[in-house]
Amino acid sequence: MKKGKLWLIPTPLGEGAIEKSLSKENLTIIQGLTAFIVENEKVSRKFLREVGIKVPQSELIIEEFGKHTKKPIEEYFSLLEKGQDMGLLSDAGCPGIADPGSEIVAEAHKRNIQVIPLVGPSSILLSLMASGFNGQSFLFHGYIPIDKKARKDKLRQMEAQSEKLDQTQIFIETPFRNTQIIQELVESLKPQTRVCIAAGLTTEKEFIRSQKVQDWKRNLPELDKIPAIYLIYRAS
Amino acid sequence: MKKGKLWLIPTPLGEGAIEKSLSKENLTIIQGLTAFIVENEKVSRKFLREVGIKVPQSELIIEEFGKHTKKPIEEYFSLLEKGQDMGLLSDAGCPGIADPGSEIVAEAHKRNIQVIPLVGPSSILLSLMASGFNGQSFLFHGYIPIDKKARKDKLRQMEAQSEKLDQTQIFIETPFRNTQIIQELVESLKPQTRVCIAAGLTTEKEFIRSQKVQDWKRNLPELDKIPAIYLIYRAS
Repeated sequence: MKKGKLWLIPTPLGEGAIEKSLSKENLTIIQGLTAFIVENEKVSRKFLREVGIKVPQSELIIEEFGKHTKKPIEEYFSLLEKGQDMGLLSDAGCPGIADPGSEIVAEAHKRNIQVIPLVGPSSILLSLMASGFNGQSFLFHGYIPIDKKARKDKLRQMEAQSEKLDQTQIFIETPFRNTQIIQELVESLKPQTRVCIAAGLTTEKEFIRSQKVQDWKRNLPELDKIPAIYLIYRAS
Repeated sequence: MKKGKLWLIPTPLGEGAIEKSLSKENLTIIQGLTAFIVENEKVSRKFLREVGIKVPQSELIIEEFGKHTKKPIEEYFSLLEKGQDMGLLSDAGCPGIADPGSEIVAEAHKRNIQVIPLVGPSSILLSLMASGFNGQSFLFHGYIPIDKKARKDKLRQMEAQSEKLDQTQIFIETPFRNTQIIQELVESLKPQTRVCIAAGLTTEKEFIRSQKVQDWKRNLPELDKIPAIYLIYRAS
């Protein structure tokens, strides 16, 4: 029996950004699917409605695979094993990059299920392109620690590693800590180190600025509650 | 005087992949532009023809900024300073990620020229999504050394770093060395280490497989001359 395919579906980074984020061909693929593994059901149903999914919402099969809502992994694969295609969705951006979806993909490989990643938005790649920093060597750290002392240490480690290896350092922070982290960046890093802040990517609120710490100090942005990503670069 | 905007335009990773790679909204933006900074003029003219650019090719303004064709950087900014928008293009994938374009972006920031990254294909992100490896922490190395001994050392360093930091290691290699690097991967790494090989992404030849070194050994793929990217992951 032929197995189904697992489509990896990136989702928009903000409101009203579907038309910018997905190609016509990929929208057609998503519209034709009827079963999904998602990080959060409510978020994904809204996205699928906006995409114009063909099957009525009541007939969609939606399995949650989030931080707190995991069934045993084999239970997600019965449809795929029987030959039905499924889509894997994250809440925003690319599934498997900063969400639990990578476990599903790993299991798909073990079962010889074909995995097809679709082109879509990633705040990591968009911000790296737009930073003007080194894109030949870069390190994504995910979230940084919450403890104040550990955060400062982490920022300084990133700065040192960037200088030593000519490497761009990238991390994310939850939107409600944007004001705090921007303050910490300018307090912790050297004046000549370059920092790029990118927020609200692909949305009407898009903000991207890349400059030295000494220039940020004169003009701290207000990015309250807007999803943001941070890049540090200090050429060796 | 209002300055122009610099649009960062990702291009398809292979033949016939435009419809998969760019959203309708972004295609419309590209079609409306008349001036470009590109890595290679011939490659970019072909892309712009396929996209259906509105201005006749003979009226397009195309400035090369490649490894071997750089003018002084200020010469690329006269149109932007006068208020005309420009597009920045790499040969394939995202400008600024593994091409010289990041220098243009850095200069744009210095001149307070707005930089707008468009969503598009990146072999790094597509392969990371499709690998099933850790997407919370990953390191892109660009190309690895050419010297045989240095290559082996680099592969082993990546494996050790992946294990130590629970971090996915990503690198690229020129297509004509695919057979060589696959051989070196299985010879250099431990049997339980996981390797993902992704080639011909978004094209008809797309090949993505993610498995342990011991499983690769039994079944080495033939990927001669197909652009490929490699990921190493060894969970700690």
